[in-house]
Amino acid sequence: MIRMEMYIIGVDGGGTKTTAILANREGKIIAKKEVGPSNYQVAGKKKFKRLLLDLIDNLTRSSHIKKSEISKISLGLAGVGRENEKKEVHGILNDVGFDSIVENDAVIALEGALGGKPGVVIIAGTGSIALGKNDKDEIARAGGWGYILGDEGSGFYIGKNALIYALKEYDGRGEKTILTEMIKENLEISNIEEVVPLIYSERLTRTDVSNLAKLVFEAYRKKDRIANIILNEAGKELGLLAYAIIRKLEFKSKSIDMSLIGGIFKEKEHLLEPIRAAIPYNINFIEPRFPPVIGAFLMGLEKIDEEVLKTLDYEVKKMGSGL
Amino acid sequence: MIRMEMYIIGVDGGGTKTTAILANREGKIIAKKEVGPSNYQVAGKKKFKRLLLDLIDNLTRSSHIKKSEISKISLGLAGVGRENEKKEVHGILNDVGFDSIVENDAVIALEGALGGKPGVVIIAGTGSIALGKNDKDEIARAGGWGYILGDEGSGFYIGKNALIYALKEYDGRGEKTILTEMIKENLEISNIEEVVPLIYSERLTRTDVSNLAKLVFEAYRKKDRIANIILNEAGKELGLLAYAIIRKLEFKSKSIDMSLIGGIFKEKEHLLEPIRAAIPYNINFIEPRFPPVIGAFLMGLEKIDEEVLKTLDYEVKKMGSGL
Repeated sequence: MIRMEMYIIGVDGGGTKTTAILANREGKIIAKKEVGPSNYQVAGKKKFKRLLLDLIDNLTRSSHIKKSEISKISLGLAGVGRENEKKEVHGILNDVGFDSIVENDAVIALEGALGGKPGVVIIAGTGSIALGKNDKDEIARAGGWGYILGDEGSGFYIGKNALIYALKEYDGRGEKTILTEMIKENLEISNIEEVVPLIYSERLTRTDVSNLAKLVFEAYRKKDRIANIILNEAGKELGLLAYAIIRKLEFKSKSIDMSLIGGIFKEKEHLLEPIRAAIPYNINFIEPRFPPVIGAFLMGLEKIDEEVLKTLDYEVKKMGSGL
Repeated sequence: MIRMEMYIIGVDGGGTKTTAILANREGKIIAKKEVGPSNYQVAGKKKFKRLLLDLIDNLTRSSHIKKSEISKISLGLAGVGRENEKKEVHGILNDVGFDSIVENDAVIALEGALGGKPGVVIIAGTGSIALGKNDKDEIARAGGWGYILGDEGSGFYIGKNALIYALKEYDGRGEKTILTEMIKENLEISNIEEVVPLIYSERLTRTDVSNLAKLVFEAYRKKDRIANIILNEAGKELGLLAYAIIRKLEFKSKSIDMSLIGGIFKEKEHLLEPIRAAIPYNINFIEPRFPPVIGAFLMGLEKIDEEVLKTLDYEVKKMGSGL
């Protein structure tokens, strides 16, 4: 007897960890596995290939499913975006007999958050980017140009501006802000000028600068005017990212679903208003429905119907924070 | 017979070259020497010491002046600013019997440009900084916090903004600008997105980005609206640096002398208006009177009178572009 059911493997390959699921087309999750980072640029092709093939081995073996029953591997990968990079990953999987879909990890975050439906996501952690999908399944992105050329509204942007305003107070260009004292205490320095060599020697990394964003949220709650300016500007920039998407995708509806993803939105109450203000549409903020790995799985389906979404709701709930 | 005349050595120690003069207190230049870079941070203490002592040897030998006749070595050094760095340089010279004055190279640019008189300089090349001196000989600075935390209005700032606006056009956030085509042609890329890996891999250095400023000046002349926005903003930022100085130094006069120094001001006609607009004082733009090495010499004098300035005018003119 031939098993007709075919399975899909969804992979969320990030810079700190890689999550993968094996599920059937109805959305039933058969196996799940989490391994180390899979940033293609950092790991290199050889290491990346090994990680990927081990992952597939593990998922199929633990679920007693033959590799020939896997109809598709659907991947969202950090550090992959350009066509030649996608082609290389396709090549790796093609060599061992798998059909694949390869996208950047932001795309599966979009698919997961909106359950494959039209809408927009803003992703803001250390960096920032916005993505959207319209009802013709067209995808657009804006931002994500990195800490020198972009990442407006990101954690790095907020933390960097805290430092800039503190230095402006120090050299007489800016007004007084409680951020100066908070930064000095946080970084254990006695003079704000000391941040300068820390930044350029990279003893303060981009992640460290991003972490200063929490001081800005705290100063905002204490009614600091500069913190208010920084968060307003950050929210506006994030809104402008999303608005660019909305114009490009020519959304018909005047009401657009939007999900906010990433560390910055842990304290999103300070950012919602300026985001809304930057976008002349009705924005319907919704909680992300699924994690990115489910987005990868959804991307691998030919058609997403309500049945599979409901099954996935149930499955994800069952797994709890395990995804 | 004892020669009573005492001499001063002035040193302009930059990141690309070091210029030094030996002159008497009346401003007569006896010897001049140019050698390689003397950035203290880059060269390290040992190499820096060798360069400095060789320079003093060379100047005294070629002018047949005894080291005991040197009353002071007055230095403006790139990469030196903090008290401990100054102390180390004092120590090097003290060990071999010299009295010294040590400042950052921006200070001698100020002293040289204004001939030791009160006023403000804005220095804008790859980076940007403003300095000023009031009639109580108090010196203040603003800006100069480097390419991540500051350098507003600098060549890097202008070039970076050209890239940012081109990427904003590309991802749907910004309006059309001829800068996009100019950058693509200049960098020999077929898609503006290709600048992103060039920047983060540092194949495009900070100097390369600064060099893109010339495209912005060119686009401005061709009436590009975005180039106009970038240069207006740059001029405003440079003006705000200067205004911070003016407030800190509490200038009495409503008319303040200001010199503009650095590569960005080769095309200063586009920047003068926004600089003026940012400062609610009468600004009297003056050409820098002397090069920084003369500023170092002036810093070494106990008292600057009109006689010595006139002699220096004559001496510098005689040397032509040799300084």
